[in-house]
Amino acid sequence: MSASLSQLVHQLSARFNNQQQAFDNPPLYAHIVVNCRPLVHLLPGSLLIEQSYAMDPLKPYRIRVLRAQTRDEKLIIFSYSLSDEQKYWGSVYEPERMLKIEEKDLQAIEGCNYIVRKKNSNFIGEVEPGCRCLVDRKGVTTYIVSKFELTNKGEMRTLDRGHNPVTHEQLWGSLGGVFEFNRTTDFSKEIPYDWIEEWKK
Amino acid sequence: MSASLSQLVHQLSARFNNQQQAFDNPPLYAHIVVNCRPLVHLLPGSLLIEQSYAMDPLKPYRIRVLRAQTRDEKLIIFSYSLSDEQKYWGSVYEPERMLKIEEKDLQAIEGCNYIVRKKNSNFIGEVEPGCRCLVDRKGVTTYIVSKFELTNKGEMRTLDRGHNPVTHEQLWGSLGGVFEFNRTTDFSKEIPYDWIEEWKK
Repeated sequence: MSASLSQLVHQLSARFNNQQQAFDNPPLYAHIVVNCRPLVHLLPGSLLIEQSYAMDPLKPYRIRVLRAQTRDEKLIIFSYSLSDEQKYWGSVYEPERMLKIEEKDLQAIEGCNYIVRKKNSNFIGEVEPGCRCLVDRKGVTTYIVSKFELTNKGEMRTLDRGHNPVTHEQLWGSLGGVFEFNRTTDFSKEIPYDWIEEWKK
Repeated sequence: MSASLSQLVHQLSARFNNQQQAFDNPPLYAHIVVNCRPLVHLLPGSLLIEQSYAMDPLKPYRIRVLRAQTRDEKLIIFSYSLSDEQKYWGSVYEPERMLKIEEKDLQAIEGCNYIVRKKNSNFIGEVEPGCRCLVDRKGVTTYIVSKFELTNKGEMRTLDRGHNPVTHEQLWGSLGGVFEFNRTTDFSKEIPYDWIEEWKK
């Protein structure tokens, strides 16, 4: 299990983009960059994730702290929002700014953690059951159904959809829908030795 | 009818983008720029249209000549592909290059013309019936169902979907799906006086 946790954090620690997909299927897919980089001064498994349009990489539309841990023999990725998050926009490109993030800046996002399982050499993560991961979009509350798949070849596929909390009808999300990312930069060498030692225990 | 034709060409002659939509709904909508500019040296109603990702405006993923005309009391927008089209990429930003396009460079695209109707002060265009507007996407043939709406406030909404020619099942296109563009530059002042006089006849 600890070996899997280590492997998961290694595969997550990267810059990904879906340039190929966007170019192959215009105009159906926005061109997105995802940066997921170890927060080496925080608890093992802590990663800063920024998601942005490729044309505006320093203004992420979403910035979060993820923390991959094992709980009851399960791999979980916990999700946290950041207070004063704009201060950290684009810091995945200047990691010295990432070091200013402190534990007290993190707020757990209830219902939005990922349960991760391994399938062959891939990791598949899905938002925990319960339809509790709520977001507002244009004043309408929806719950998120979100899934990702990471391969050991550096690919990541993601699927996000918003559903009506009462009728469960899908309200947004594309039909073809899966974003297909490739790793363009590997950040796994930044994972601290301490974390790896901790995971071996 | 001729007044409508003139009005349609005026409303089409513009640069449009969906920046607001892309920023409001990340990452569901690619950020797209559409340029539609009069080809003043060709037959009345001829427009060069380039559609591109906003981050790569000089490399359109689609470039076409449109020609708005009336036929049997109907407003039709005929679609043409360009031979050696790469030569004209980005020419909507350098209109002197547009002048090099000749009639002999145009090939009618069968089945992909738009039938346009007026609804209040808006124009609504739909690909002609018959499921004959075929495109290949990743080696799979689909027919296009395409619709646009132009308002007299400079807005344009578009919807494109690909369907299986046999089962008619939708194969691509987003579910929320409508792209919402705003006019950012008005090119209608470039419409030649000759065209307007012709339409008055």
